[in-house]
Amino acid sequence: MRYRAVLAYDGGAYHGFQRQANAEPTIQSAVEEALAEIARSAITIIGAGRTDAGVHATGQVIAFDMVWRHTPADLQNALNAALPDDIAIRALSEAAPDFHPRFDALRRSYEYQLYVSPVRDPLRRLYVWHRIGTLDVIAIRQAADGLMGEHDFSTFGVPPQGDNPVRTVYTADWIVGHDDRHTFTITANAFLYRMVRSIVGTLVQVGQGRVTAREFREILASCDRSQSGPVAPAHGLTLTSVEYAD
Amino acid sequence: MRYRAVLAYDGGAYHGFQRQANAEPTIQSAVEEALAEIARSAITIIGAGRTDAGVHATGQVIAFDMVWRHTPADLQNALNAALPDDIAIRALSEAAPDFHPRFDALRRSYEYQLYVSPVRDPLRRLYVWHRIGTLDVIAIRQAADGLMGEHDFSTFGVPPQGDNPVRTVYTADWIVGHDDRHTFTITANAFLYRMVRSIVGTLVQVGQGRVTAREFREILASCDRSQSGPVAPAHGLTLTSVEYAD
Repeated sequence: MRYRAVLAYDGGAYHGFQRQANAEPTIQSAVEEALAEIARSAITIIGAGRTDAGVHATGQVIAFDMVWRHTPADLQNALNAALPDDIAIRALSEAAPDFHPRFDALRRSYEYQLYVSPVRDPLRRLYVWHRIGTLDVIAIRQAADGLMGEHDFSTFGVPPQGDNPVRTVYTADWIVGHDDRHTFTITANAFLYRMVRSIVGTLVQVGQGRVTAREFREILASCDRSQSGPVAPAHGLTLTSVEYAD
Repeated sequence: MRYRAVLAYDGGAYHGFQRQANAEPTIQSAVEEALAEIARSAITIIGAGRTDAGVHATGQVIAFDMVWRHTPADLQNALNAALPDDIAIRALSEAAPDFHPRFDALRRSYEYQLYVSPVRDPLRRLYVWHRIGTLDVIAIRQAADGLMGEHDFSTFGVPPQGDNPVRTVYTADWIVGHDDRHTFTITANAFLYRMVRSIVGTLVQVGQGRVTAREFREILASCDRSQSGPVAPAHGLTLTSVEYAD
């Protein structure tokens, strides 16, 4: 039986989602270890997105095949008991035998959190990018509007090997909440490596008045990676959802 | 010149606020080290409240005497540059020569955060107490009302040596926010050691239907420490403010 699960994790202690030869721990290896403990045999999981080292998730989707005699809810409970505290299975259900979390995904959404204030906040430091000084949010939103639609995003990221750099962005919003919290949310069919963090780093330059909204669009159109602003740090980024046809 | 500062910290890595012989690091020692680095001489700070190991603060108040030739804002910036990321000076000003953060304090406020949900939240695990199952919030509020006013709080805590166990509670509210977040806020003239966490542990028993609101009041009136529910874990607790006559 193939299972599908929604995963939340604090990426702070991990070298990204994907298992690697020389960088442990990863989210994949932690989940596979928990599954092996329950199944008493090796099980490989497939993830919808390969989040980078330090990136968090509240809505990562995984799939795996397993022989399990009890209910999906029992499996979810067993997994949550076996997993470390910084990873949790939020939902788990049976899936079609050919369900593939990466190839079947229609849209992914990310959220990037910033704290814009003269003094850092020790209680949020692990999950927000602290920026001193004010940001021109109207200029940021004008620039972010330029992301909408289908573009070659080579300026902001690198496609996986053999893939093209064209992606379609459905929504891109910069929201200012209470407590000086700024949140950038973006939904696209898929993302290039580093794409969200490069966009955020460049939008912050727009907010600081160092790049105009018009120049931001030109930077995107240049398809030149060297034109991007700095890559925003990983700890502000969270993969919030992956959507499928069902 | 005496200075007064408002401190925020993530208590997760510290053995409480107060400097101790055999338990380092403490918040006090970290701040005193930063001050010594700036002043090039030893400076002792006094805090408004001795938060326990693992307890956080957004509004701890401290005072210290220092010779400083620049502005308070310069001193705040220098301290924030010298302090570790998990401690920050939110405000700093000159104070009266006889200002004492503990003796002059009129009211202290604490906040205790819980996450009440079947599955833990990895991204909030460091700052909330995760409880499975629902809580009867109406019963909790009825019980919490019994805390208001002047009482001997011996059931819920231990007074500092030589002090009496009578305290006056001004407000005690249990609020349910979005995302299954429950927040208990309490303001009193002062608190006994472990008082807020013992109250929260017992109120959760009320919410679970194991103790009635009426029994909660009897437990308070018993002045018997053994009648208290379990002490809630430190990482859910934050000292949010200390108020003075000015």
